[in-house]
Amino acid sequence: MSAAVSATTLIERHRDTLDKALDAVRTRAYWSPYPEHPKAYADAAEGKAAFEALLGHRFDLDQPGTDDWTGTERSPYGLDLGVEYPHPDPDVLLPAMRAGMPAWRDAGPEARAMVCLEILARINARTHEFAHAVMHTSGQAFTMAFQAGGPHAQDRGLEAVAYAYVEQVRTPETAEWIKPQGKRDPLNLRKSFTAVPRGIGLVIGCNTFPTWNGYPGLFASLATGNAVLVKPHPRAALPLAMTVRVAREVLAEAGFSPDLVCLAVERPGEGLAKTLALRPEVRVIDYTGSTAFGDWLETNARQAQVFTEKAGVNTVVVDSTDDYRGMLSNLAFSLSLYSGQMCTTPQNLLIPRDGIDTDAGRKTYDEVVTDLAGAVEGLLGDDNRANALLGALVNPDVKARLEAAPGLGEVALASRAVAHPEFPDAVVRTPVLVKLDGAKPDAEAAYLSECFGPVAFAVAMDSTADALELLRRTVRDKGAMTVGGYTTSAEVERGLEEVCWEESAQLSLNLTGGVYVNQTAAFSDFHGSGGNPAANAALCDGAFVASRFRVVEVRRPA
Amino acid sequence: MSAAVSATTLIERHRDTLDKALDAVRTRAYWSPYPEHPKAYADAAEGKAAFEALLGHRFDLDQPGTDDWTGTERSPYGLDLGVEYPHPDPDVLLPAMRAGMPAWRDAGPEARAMVCLEILARINARTHEFAHAVMHTSGQAFTMAFQAGGPHAQDRGLEAVAYAYVEQVRTPETAEWIKPQGKRDPLNLRKSFTAVPRGIGLVIGCNTFPTWNGYPGLFASLATGNAVLVKPHPRAALPLAMTVRVAREVLAEAGFSPDLVCLAVERPGEGLAKTLALRPEVRVIDYTGSTAFGDWLETNARQAQVFTEKAGVNTVVVDSTDDYRGMLSNLAFSLSLYSGQMCTTPQNLLIPRDGIDTDAGRKTYDEVVTDLAGAVEGLLGDDNRANALLGALVNPDVKARLEAAPGLGEVALASRAVAHPEFPDAVVRTPVLVKLDGAKPDAEAAYLSECFGPVAFAVAMDSTADALELLRRTVRDKGAMTVGGYTTSAEVERGLEEVCWEESAQLSLNLTGGVYVNQTAAFSDFHGSGGNPAANAALCDGAFVASRFRVVEVRRPA
Repeated sequence: MSAAVSATTLIERHRDTLDKALDAVRTRAYWSPYPEHPKAYADAAEGKAAFEALLGHRFDLDQPGTDDWTGTERSPYGLDLGVEYPHPDPDVLLPAMRAGMPAWRDAGPEARAMVCLEILARINARTHEFAHAVMHTSGQAFTMAFQAGGPHAQDRGLEAVAYAYVEQVRTPETAEWIKPQGKRDPLNLRKSFTAVPRGIGLVIGCNTFPTWNGYPGLFASLATGNAVLVKPHPRAALPLAMTVRVAREVLAEAGFSPDLVCLAVERPGEGLAKTLALRPEVRVIDYTGSTAFGDWLETNARQAQVFTEKAGVNTVVVDSTDDYRGMLSNLAFSLSLYSGQMCTTPQNLLIPRDGIDTDAGRKTYDEVVTDLAGAVEGLLGDDNRANALLGALVNPDVKARLEAAPGLGEVALASRAVAHPEFPDAVVRTPVLVKLDGAKPDAEAAYLSECFGPVAFAVAMDSTADALELLRRTVRDKGAMTVGGYTTSAEVERGLEEVCWEESAQLSLNLTGGVYVNQTAAFSDFHGSGGNPAANAALCDGAFVASRFRVVEVRRPA
Repeated sequence: MSAAVSATTLIERHRDTLDKALDAVRTRAYWSPYPEHPKAYADAAEGKAAFEALLGHRFDLDQPGTDDWTGTERSPYGLDLGVEYPHPDPDVLLPAMRAGMPAWRDAGPEARAMVCLEILARINARTHEFAHAVMHTSGQAFTMAFQAGGPHAQDRGLEAVAYAYVEQVRTPETAEWIKPQGKRDPLNLRKSFTAVPRGIGLVIGCNTFPTWNGYPGLFASLATGNAVLVKPHPRAALPLAMTVRVAREVLAEAGFSPDLVCLAVERPGEGLAKTLALRPEVRVIDYTGSTAFGDWLETNARQAQVFTEKAGVNTVVVDSTDDYRGMLSNLAFSLSLYSGQMCTTPQNLLIPRDGIDTDAGRKTYDEVVTDLAGAVEGLLGDDNRANALLGALVNPDVKARLEAAPGLGEVALASRAVAHPEFPDAVVRTPVLVKLDGAKPDAEAAYLSECFGPVAFAVAMDSTADALELLRRTVRDKGAMTVGGYTTSAEVERGLEEVCWEESAQLSLNLTGGVYVNQTAAFSDFHGSGGNPAANAALCDGAFVASRFRVVEVRRPA
C-alpha cells in the first residue's frame, strides 16, 4: 500500500506531543494537549450539522465480512438515531483483520504511536460532532459529553499510547552480547528483539462513556501492534463507529490496512460479545460493564488477556471537616453530576450517628443529612442548571432503581423530575438520598450492593472506626472505583489511607473545591486500582499495556 | 523490630549492583555480578560439609503455624536426604505472613530491592552448598548444578528484582497537580502514590530447577511488597528451604518480619499446592511444571495473578548450514545436557527427507541423522565426560519415557546406561534419537507431544516449507520454550523469523559454537515468550512484574 501520510510527517507532527505525554506520566503533573472548553474548538456549528447528517443513514465503513446491518439506538433525550451499522461474519472479518497485522508489527512502536496520535488529533478536531454523538447515546448533558466524551477521552487514549510506547521500547531493537571466556575467544551473539502483537483486541463498549471507557483499551491494543475490533454497547454505537471510521482513514492513509480497526454491532438480544470473546483470534479483551458479564469474560475467555471494569460500591467516610459548606457543596455536585451514572459516583456516605465536628460547630447525623439534601436542592433548584448538570437517565433500568430507592429506607431528599426545555421526552431526575442505619443488618442488602444511578445512602454509623471497618469490608467484598474521606484528624486520615493501601482503592481526601471524587485526570490520576473487585485493571499503568504484546528474540552468531 | 542491618548499609552495599542490573536489562549486553566458575568461590570444602551436615536432620525455620514435619527426598544419585521440613497450618501461617506486609510495603521499593540483593549476596556466598543441594535433588551433574542452580539462578533473581524496582518507581512518590482555571485560582492538589502488594505470593517449585525456576517469582513478588510462601516440589525441597532460611535471616536483621518468606512442604500425595493456591490470601502464583496442573491453576485460582511455565515441544528446523560439524556438535551437546531434562531442550529435529546443503557437501536425511548420532556418541563416549554432562535421570517417569521411546519409530541412536563412579545407584542415560516420518499421520502422536527427557525425534519432512508449517502448528498448538534453526538461505531465515514472530517463540539461528539453544542468559535473553501455550510469562519482562502490585493514589487539596 502507498502511504499518503509518511511516517516522517507524522513524527514531525506528533513526536513532541508523545514526549510531553511521557513526561506527564512520569511527573503526574497537570497536562493535556486537548483543550476542554468548547470555545477552543472552531467546529461548533459544523459539528452539530455533521452529527445530524449521520442520523437516519447507514454508517458504511467498507469493512469485509459484513453480513447484515443493524442499529436500534434511541437517544436518552428521546430521538431515534436511525443509524445502521455493519454486523459481522467473524469467519470473514477476523482473518481480514489479522492479515494487516504483520505490516503493522513491522512498522515498530514509534510509527504505531504516531498513527494513533494522528487518529486522536483528527478525532479532537471533530470534538463537537463527537460531543453530540456522546450526548445522544449516553444521556450526558452537552458540556459533559463534550468534555468527558471529547478531550478527556482523548487524553486517556493518548495516555494509553504513551504507556504502550514506553513499554515496547524498554527493550532495545538489537543488542550485541559478548561473553568473556578466559583465554578463549569470547562468545559473541547478535540479538534482535521485536514487540509482537497478541492477536485481535476486542473492545466491548459501555452505554455511559463509550469513548472515555473505550479509548484506553482501543489505543493500548492498537499501539502494541494488535488489530482492534470494537463491539459497542448497542445503545451507544455511534461515537465508537465514528472513532472506527477515523482510525480506518488514518491507517489507510499511512499505508496500513484499514481493517486493523473494525466495528461489530450486534442485533438486538444477540449476545455478540460472547461469540466474539471466545474466538481464538481474539487475544485481548477490554470490557466495561456489569460484574456478571465481566466475571463471565474472565472465567471463559481464557485465550485472551481480559481487562475489566465492573461494578463497585463507592464510599465516602464523613468524620469531621474544617470547611462544612465546602464539603456539602462538593458532595452535592458529586452526587448530581450525570445523575450519579458514573462508576466513580459515591453511593454510601458513612456518617457517625452522634455527629461530626465542623468549622460551623458540631453537626448531628440528621443535620448533616438535612444540610446535604439542602445543598443538592440548592445546586439543582434552577431547571436550566439542573439539566446542564444531570443529563438524562441513560436507560429504563436506572429509572427503575431510582423509583425503588424510597422503599429502602427513610427518604431524606426525594428525587424530582426536571423538564428539559429542548427534549420533552428526556427522563431527567435529581438524586434521591436515603437514610440507612449501618448497625441494622437488614440495611446491608441496600448499602452493600451497587445501586447504579442517582441513588445515595446516608448510612448512620456507631463511630468512625466502624465506618472504616465497613469501608474495608465494602472495598474487599464489593470493590470500589473511588473512596472519599472528610476528616481533620491525622489519625482518621491515616486510618483511611491504611484501608485504601491494604484494599487497593483510590482515595480523595477533604475535597471541598472544584475537584470531585468522581473525576480523574489522565496523566496524573489513576482510574481504579485494579486491585479490588471493581476492576482488574487501572487506567493507565504498566500492567494495562505490558501483556498486550510479547517480545520475541532472535539470536545468531555475530 | 530493631534492624541489625540498616537500609543505609544495604544501599551502600548493593545500590551499584542494582544500577548495573538496570543498565544491563536496558542494553541486553552481557553482564553478571555472580561468577560462574566454581573456583571463583572460596567455600568449596565448607560448602560440601555444610550440605552434608543438613542431611538426616529436621530443617527448622522457626515459622508460625507448623503442624507437622515432612520430607521424603531421595537424591537421583541414590541417597536419602532424610531432611524434614515444616508442614503448615495455613490458618495460622498465612495470617502471620500477612501481618508483616504493611511495614514491608511502607519500606518502599528501594529498601525492598536492597534486602532482596542482600539475600542473593548471602546465597551467592554459599553457592557450593547450594550446588550440592541442587545436584542431589534435581540430578544435575555438579558443574551444572553449580552454575544453573547457583550464579545463573541468582542472576534471574536479581533480574526480577531490577524489573520490579523500575516498575514501581516509574510513578513518583508524590506529585503536585496544578490545573489552570482561566481567571480563577488554579486547582491545586497534592498527590501521593504508593506501590501496594497484592497479598501472598505462592511459588510452586519444580523438580529439575528448584532455584533457577523458583527465584524469578520469589524475588519479583517479594520486591513488590508481597509476602512469599514457597511450596517446593517434594523431591526438590532442600535448595528452596535453604533459600527461605537465608531470606528469613536477612529480613529479620533488616528489621522486617521473617515471616514475609515461609516454606510449606507437602506430605506425600497431599496435593498441598491445590489447597494453598485457592486460599483468598494468595494473590500471586508462580508455577513451573506440567501443563495439566498449570492449566488447573489458571482456571481455578481466579483470585490470583497466575504465572505459569508448562510443557512445550521444542523444534529445530535443519535446512542447510555452512558449518556442518559445528551444527552437529552444537546439537549433540543440546540433546545431551542434563539428559534433555530441560524445558528448553530440542525435541523435534525437522530435516528435509531429500537432504540439506552443507559446507561438507549435500547430506541426505539419513546421513544427517547418522552423523548427529555419531556426534552424540563422540561427545558421550567417555564415561567421565558423559557423567559430567548428563547428570542423573530425575525420576522414574523420565526413565519410563526413555524406555518407551524405541517403540515410537526407528532408533537411530540407542540410549546407553552410564555407570557413575561415585554414586552406583544413579540412573545415568545417554539420549535416544528416533526417526519419524513427518508425512505419516500416525507419527504425529509422538512428535506433537512433549516427551520430557533424553528423547529426540529426527522428523523427515517433505520440504523446508513443510517444516516451517509444522513448526508453526507445533508452537501454536503445543507451545515451545525454544526454537532453533539452521539455514544459509535468507528466505528460510525470514520464514523462521516470521513463524516465531507470529506465534511468539524465541529463536536461535545457526548456533555452532559454545552457545546452545537450551541456554539463556539473564539480563539479555528472554526465557520463554509468554505468548504461546508453553508459558504465559517470560523471564523477565515488564509483564512479569507489573501486576504483582498496584498503585494507590491519595489526593488532597494542596
